Amino acid sequence: MVESALHLTIATELRGRIRAGELPVGGPMPSESELCREFSASRGPVRQALAALRAEGLIGGGQGRRAVVLDTVAAQPFATLLSFSRWAEMIGRTPGQVTQEIGVGRPGPAVAAALNLDAGDDVVALVRLRLLDGEPAMVERTSFVTSVGRALLDVDLDTVSIYAHLAEAGADLHTARHTLDAVAADPRDAALLGVAEGSPLLRERRLAMTSTGEPLEWSDDRYRPDVASVTITNTRSAHAAMVRHLDD
Amino acid sequence: MVESALHLTIATELRGRIRAGELPVGGPMPSESELCREFSASRGPVRQALAALRAEGLIGGGQGRRAVVLDTVAAQPFATLLSFSRWAEMIGRTPGQVTQEIGVGRPGPAVAAALNLDAGDDVVALVRLRLLDGEPAMVERTSFVTSVGRALLDVDLDTVSIYAHLAEAGADLHTARHTLDAVAADPRDAALLGVAEGSPLLRERRLAMTSTGEPLEWSDDRYRPDVASVTITNTRSAHAAMVRHLDD
Repeated sequence: MVESALHLTIATELRGRIRAGELPVGGPMPSESELCREFSASRGPVRQALAALRAEGLIGGGQGRRAVVLDTVAAQPFATLLSFSRWAEMIGRTPGQVTQEIGVGRPGPAVAAALNLDAGDDVVALVRLRLLDGEPAMVERTSFVTSVGRALLDVDLDTVSIYAHLAEAGADLHTARHTLDAVAADPRDAALLGVAEGSPLLRERRLAMTSTGEPLEWSDDRYRPDVASVTITNTRSAHAAMVRHLDD
Repeated sequence: MVESALHLTIATELRGRIRAGELPVGGPMPSESELCREFSASRGPVRQALAALRAEGLIGGGQGRRAVVLDTVAAQPFATLLSFSRWAEMIGRTPGQVTQEIGVGRPGPAVAAALNLDAGDDVVALVRLRLLDGEPAMVERTSFVTSVGRALLDVDLDTVSIYAHLAEAGADLHTARHTLDAVAADPRDAALLGVAEGSPLLRERRLAMTSTGEPLEWSDDRYRPDVASVTITNTRSAHAAMVRHLDD
């Protein structure tokens, strides 16, 4: 195995042990020496793997001490919140999606209001189940204004990146306003995500706009909290650099 | 009534009607003329009030059309996430808090790990119920390293701003890492917040550090989702300016 892939293998294995509780929260991580022996690796890849887990909030400590387990869920950096696929790959898991429905129709009053539509306007609406390693992770309910969304009607949404496809089709997806809250799983969420009805889900609602402020997309994404959280770091009285890419 | 206060009165009244469902989501707002008549106001304060509601995500539309109701919950801008009191005042509601307990003791393994403590180290731990207009809104569970937290043992936490007090005492609260997810209300959350056990809460976990990265505080804040959400706006491939103040 080449060295460049070894740190990914080590990180994936350690994430799996943390998720499974084999390395419990509050407990110590194996030492660097132990990890070097176990994975027949030099310090370099072991340290790279530990740095990745640290960036995801899974482990902490260090500074001369042994690292400790902080969390079982790899947090999604705010900078990647729009890119489910990229985030999945970053934490060593395989993204997937199963489109439940797509069609053109009249939106409900809340979606029509968010998209600033006229009374008779349709939207292109779609529902997708997003997967991590084949397991249900998130339910995505998205509505696009038809001028943008019709570009999605003739593609296979189980394989195509929606934002990449829309950008190629010339859509000016520029600014997004995200609202994070908690909701109880409704019957459809529960069935798709494999959780009990009423159990807590992390919801991200997103209004995507053009550079002139015209609404293009309204999305309601609901995450199983045992697979996803969102993290943001900032500094007192300082402007934190923050980049998020509108691709998926 | 002086004009400078009138827009606040109008905004507070309109927020109340939206929260109560008298102005339902997806429905139109009263026109500017109607609001001017009702509140015996000129255009200025009416437009200021509508602008405030727009900034909070409660209404949208406009651009030559009548504004529409988008949401019943005023979103908390990310920039104020650390300042419950300031956020409450911004949305025209009165903040409050009731300290449930404060004391010095041994932390659990997860908190000890997050704060990078030695085996025998204590923390100053406190639990507060935060209120909006006297109604339960959030449960705050905070643990400070003792060198910082002992400054809190001799003050009335129902009236004092913790961060302001710690800053005065010389604490170097510089950087914070926030993780947002959804959790089910445990029995204590349920009792304090007046919700059913197991119902969804928006959780913000926060690790506050010094300018050199030394952990000072670990907090677990749980919001009733019908009173609070968190919102962030960003722009494609641009660095969004983001400021959050560490005061409360």
